[in-house]
Amino acid sequence: MTESGKPILYSYFRSSCSWRVRIALALKGIDYETVPINLIKDGGQQFSKDFQALNPMKQVPALKIDGITIHQSLAIIEYLEETRPTPRLLPQDPKKRASVRMISDLIAGGIQPLQNLSVLKQVEEEFQLTWAQNAIISGFNALEQILQSTAGTYCVGDEVTMADLCLVPQVANAERFKVDCTPYPTISSINKRLLVLEAFQVTHPCRQPDTPTELRA
Amino acid sequence: MTESGKPILYSYFRSSCSWRVRIALALKGIDYETVPINLIKDGGQQFSKDFQALNPMKQVPALKIDGITIHQSLAIIEYLEETRPTPRLLPQDPKKRASVRMISDLIAGGIQPLQNLSVLKQVEEEFQLTWAQNAIISGFNALEQILQSTAGTYCVGDEVTMADLCLVPQVANAERFKVDCTPYPTISSINKRLLVLEAFQVTHPCRQPDTPTELRA
Repeated sequence: MTESGKPILYSYFRSSCSWRVRIALALKGIDYETVPINLIKDGGQQFSKDFQALNPMKQVPALKIDGITIHQSLAIIEYLEETRPTPRLLPQDPKKRASVRMISDLIAGGIQPLQNLSVLKQVEEEFQLTWAQNAIISGFNALEQILQSTAGTYCVGDEVTMADLCLVPQVANAERFKVDCTPYPTISSINKRLLVLEAFQVTHPCRQPDTPTELRA
Repeated sequence: MTESGKPILYSYFRSSCSWRVRIALALKGIDYETVPINLIKDGGQQFSKDFQALNPMKQVPALKIDGITIHQSLAIIEYLEETRPTPRLLPQDPKKRASVRMISDLIAGGIQPLQNLSVLKQVEEEFQLTWAQNAIISGFNALEQILQSTAGTYCVGDEVTMADLCLVPQVANAERFKVDCTPYPTISSINKRLLVLEAFQVTHPCRQPDTPTELRA
């Protein structure tokens, strides 16, 4: 926390995991300060001694709040949900909560980790795009099918949930990696409906304190 | 559910994600039936039409319970926790719950997905072992440091939590991939204390209905 008591989010404008948390903070109306961690500059600021002391996984996001530092985006969102329950990001019904967590874990554990920067660096450069596309396509094939039975206006029913916070940044990654999303009409239409919401707009990678001028919108 | 009303766990004896759920079921005293899904036989039974209808991600575990099917191990465990709260696998204090989820996500999202069978298949055979070792070592370096501030007898304090359900199967994977665990005294000693508990013993990969005779113990 800052001296003013505001939470501090260690974030990178383009990180999809950071974006998830930014949306949660925006939806819940939590005022916070951003400390940008540039994953590329200076060989990666996440590798600095100071940041490693904060998050030994050397990853963003990390959130300093209530005297503790939490990393792992879903753990952060679950903590915000338990301590700042309004508006809720998990439905009341345990079966619907299970759907939300299943979709969130599918994206946060089954797709994103396979196409993130640190993993792609381990793949030969000429295969990186295909590698990332394969991870996303394989996950989206499953996700499209699952959403067909869980979705209403959004991923699970008609309320914005943690699953939606995972969906939008992952679709943005899919677009960056030039994945054709026409085979995923459910994913695409939910994404479209979410992108017009204010909390998704103000937290968008193109509107962050650390967004380079040429990528601003 | 079976006609008798028992939950059905679709599991593979060696899958670390399946093992997590088996421990949760054992700790909570939930009687269930196992349907083995052999990830290697017949080119991988997870790719069968029947199983894909159940889990489009083509992964174990999946749990049929209370009229729904849940996949993603942590989503399953969170559902069990909400519907069968005793004994609890998440502490009452939200800050400690955050630690449990952070450690669980670090393993379930930050280590395991990078060293699982389907990913290793995409890596050239001669690099597979190094790839898996790198994922585990990089995660364990972080985890060892985190546990130094969260651990008591187990990962977070002195009660068995969801984090412990992730730790033990991941250490077993580390051993399978010949990772030297001496640089991780905290991980190793917690693992040792957990392995003697009944719920970890009866659910061990060497004691499952689908464990091949030569691997039984």
